[in-house]
Amino acid sequence: MVQHELNRPSYAMGVDIGGTKILIIIKDTKGQIVFREKFDTSRDVLKIVEMIKRSLNEAGASNYEILGMGVGVPGCVDTKNGVVMELPSLKWKNLELKKLLEPHFNFPIYIKNDVNYSAIGERYLGNGQKYENMVYISIGTGVGGALILNGSLVEGHNYSAGELGYFIDREDIRQGRKNVPQDFGVFEKKTSGKGLSEKAAEYGITSRQLFEEYAKGNEIVYPIIEDFVLNMSVAISNIVSLINPEIVIIGGGVSESMGCVIDKIRENVSSFTLIPVKIELSKIGGDAGALGAVQYVFNNV
Amino acid sequence: MVQHELNRPSYAMGVDIGGTKILIIIKDTKGQIVFREKFDTSRDVLKIVEMIKRSLNEAGASNYEILGMGVGVPGCVDTKNGVVMELPSLKWKNLELKKLLEPHFNFPIYIKNDVNYSAIGERYLGNGQKYENMVYISIGTGVGGALILNGSLVEGHNYSAGELGYFIDREDIRQGRKNVPQDFGVFEKKTSGKGLSEKAAEYGITSRQLFEEYAKGNEIVYPIIEDFVLNMSVAISNIVSLINPEIVIIGGGVSESMGCVIDKIRENVSSFTLIPVKIELSKIGGDAGALGAVQYVFNNV
Repeated sequence: MVQHELNRPSYAMGVDIGGTKILIIIKDTKGQIVFREKFDTSRDVLKIVEMIKRSLNEAGASNYEILGMGVGVPGCVDTKNGVVMELPSLKWKNLELKKLLEPHFNFPIYIKNDVNYSAIGERYLGNGQKYENMVYISIGTGVGGALILNGSLVEGHNYSAGELGYFIDREDIRQGRKNVPQDFGVFEKKTSGKGLSEKAAEYGITSRQLFEEYAKGNEIVYPIIEDFVLNMSVAISNIVSLINPEIVIIGGGVSESMGCVIDKIRENVSSFTLIPVKIELSKIGGDAGALGAVQYVFNNV
Repeated sequence: MVQHELNRPSYAMGVDIGGTKILIIIKDTKGQIVFREKFDTSRDVLKIVEMIKRSLNEAGASNYEILGMGVGVPGCVDTKNGVVMELPSLKWKNLELKKLLEPHFNFPIYIKNDVNYSAIGERYLGNGQKYENMVYISIGTGVGGALILNGSLVEGHNYSAGELGYFIDREDIRQGRKNVPQDFGVFEKKTSGKGLSEKAAEYGITSRQLFEEYAKGNEIVYPIIEDFVLNMSVAISNIVSLINPEIVIIGGGVSESMGCVIDKIRENVSSFTLIPVKIELSKIGGDAGALGAVQYVFNNV
């Protein structure tokens, strides 16, 4: 360790830009969280720069060495060039986010899809620890996935790997369901928080209450939950047959309600495919993206 | 290049052990094939050793430097230890093939699943050239797959990646179809050469003739071929949505008959998923496995 690191603390920063909130976390090299705050989101990059600078100041980190910053966004990112190719919730398209941020900071900046950062968070800090082959599925407003195979993140040829929201089957096709641009995918409509909320609304309840009623034995909600469980189980089975991960971790907002169905999903998957797999719910929850972004910096500096 | 390589040629060897034939190919470092021969298969390792020794002699290679030998088998292989975990067609189970071969040869030996070697063959010598993200699907008697992602072969946690033969959907489950050990998978029964042959037999024809009749416009075979095309298109779409490869290459015996349906599969896939992909039939055909095994040796020595 060089001299100045002994005297001056070093930090890494994670910025998780969401559709409604931006979460900023700063950690020191000992892994201690020295700053954590949520801001209202913005599509104005200069406003985001201000939030980051304010966070560094408040953490007392602005005068010390910042090793780097990971920035996660809920969209498709050309990670090589730091370009946000498509981010519907903030209406960004081919936005050169890295180039826009760089003049304001003197440390390296890494832009990635937020689900990929969450997968890294789970792998190093959550339930995925030490697994070289892991699939992370995020079920929030939408549904997305991330793959860590042979110990490395697989982003795909066009940075689009993990789009299980587009999964489709023969029944969908016969019923005329299609994946169309600027809309939720066929599988995503059936299994996302948004999809579940719409069905829950017919009974005047939220998607969280849907799971609560199911756990209580309220038979009215059974068909909705059973349909969700079947769809999710089939998708996980096919992912496992194709990729043979050691573990599948389910995160995102909806996963917080899934304790009452996880055993049924495990049972289904082990009857649908012959390849064994562990299935766990996320342990680190909503901070996974920002924590994974911080971790990525530590891993890459 | 060291001196002796200039004077004495070096060779690599590929041995593709199939259920009925064993194909042995020897190449020199210039990439020239110096030996290619098919033998009747055997489950007796000593007989296979004899075939290999005879091939080296006939090629005039036995006294020169052999860089290594790749051995492909149609089953699940622990590639780290060279153990054939499961090979139904030769009734091998937990056979320590590498340990059994090693005393007979003084060069490195690499045992792998044959579809994985075929994928390597396609990547370096066939239609997959220069693609860092590629999926290879083999449709022969059975159906299997291999994944090359971030430029590396993905074998999975238990060396079981690529088992798309186990793919299943809601309709299969409702109809009571199940993946069971020692049998073809649910998807495999619908799309393999064996599955197609059984359907073709009802009309007194072969699976190859099934495609020929389809190409001629014989409407009697339409439902069988359309079902095959739909199942294959859905599977490829979901693989593409999950993995985002640049190309999917279809090889194996059945692929030789698929010229008349490949455009329909391309059209389906581009309507089923929003992620673009190239789809090609194999260019190097039945030698892909042995050639890939040779290539693997050259890449790793």
